[in-house]
Amino acid sequence: MNETLKTIAERYSCRDFKDAPLTEAQLKAIADAALAAPSARNDMPWHVIMVTDKALIEELDAETMNIMAAMEDKTYYERIKERGGKVFYNAPCLVMVASAGTPFSAIDCGILSQNVTLAAHSLGLGSVIVGLAGIPLGGPRGDELKKRLQFPDGYEFGISVLVGTANSGKEPHDLNMAKLTYIKG
Amino acid sequence: MNETLKTIAERYSCRDFKDAPLTEAQLKAIADAALAAPSARNDMPWHVIMVTDKALIEELDAETMNIMAAMEDKTYYERIKERGGKVFYNAPCLVMVASAGTPFSAIDCGILSQNVTLAAHSLGLGSVIVGLAGIPLGGPRGDELKKRLQFPDGYEFGISVLVGTANSGKEPHDLNMAKLTYIKG
Repeated sequence: MNETLKTIAERYSCRDFKDAPLTEAQLKAIADAALAAPSARNDMPWHVIMVTDKALIEELDAETMNIMAAMEDKTYYERIKERGGKVFYNAPCLVMVASAGTPFSAIDCGILSQNVTLAAHSLGLGSVIVGLAGIPLGGPRGDELKKRLQFPDGYEFGISVLVGTANSGKEPHDLNMAKLTYIKG
Repeated sequence: MNETLKTIAERYSCRDFKDAPLTEAQLKAIADAALAAPSARNDMPWHVIMVTDKALIEELDAETMNIMAAMEDKTYYERIKERGGKVFYNAPCLVMVASAGTPFSAIDCGILSQNVTLAAHSLGLGSVIVGLAGIPLGGPRGDELKKRLQFPDGYEFGISVLVGTANSGKEPHDLNMAKLTYIKG
């Protein structure tokens, strides 16, 4: 198994980060990996926002918890409470992927986010793709927060990835072979 | 730059494949990489179909061209004609990703497709993510074709990836730094 296949196989979703910032070199490598993602017709229907402003991440976290606490369905809120009460698990870097909202942008933002997690894992960092970061941006303070996150005009939440030094490792999920079919000639 | 970062940086969308089948080991490595993809709540809203039946790929290709030729907007049709008239560029392997059609499945199928392209590139193979494979499945013969492709009941086209030995190489796109913002503390 080559190094890339190993990275793909061993990557796991990290939800336990150390309180330690990434280096400039790590941030650059991750940003470069994000921007190298392919997209339909090379439209690049995204904007990559590397957030290392700890206070802003904390604020987004608190706002997400506030909104989830007020939801009728408390499933997400309770799950995060069980996991320590932090939506963003104290990660030092939030890679926010703003989306142009075009027909293929969800797929394209997914493609990009996987480059980020694999780049992070290859650098010895932990990472997790999180959809919950969309909650504060769709909430009552959404416009204000998108402005502070420097979303381009008209862009919406695409996906986000948390990156940091893992405080504890984890085994990857087993492959689910029931999800695979071969059609040979 | 480590091997994974190099794979991410050097991957390009290949549209020129040799008429040579993949080995069993290559197919397995690519399928394993696909299944190792993360998904929201580990729902795995996909089914991975490794199609190496050349006649079936040709039939999907011809059906796609037929449908595109009849469209009012001939943009796609003309583009493929210019590129040699084959939607699937004679690739020996079509990784068809069927989608459960859940709220996050587009993002999740995108994530999975990037594992496939990176695994392929790391193995020295060419690959390209193609959305056009959805056209025949949404056309008049869609139900028949989905059945022959062994789509699970209720699944729809998610995304697909062509994989094969590249007949010619290509430089990757330049990174578009205008798509990147840093927000530091």
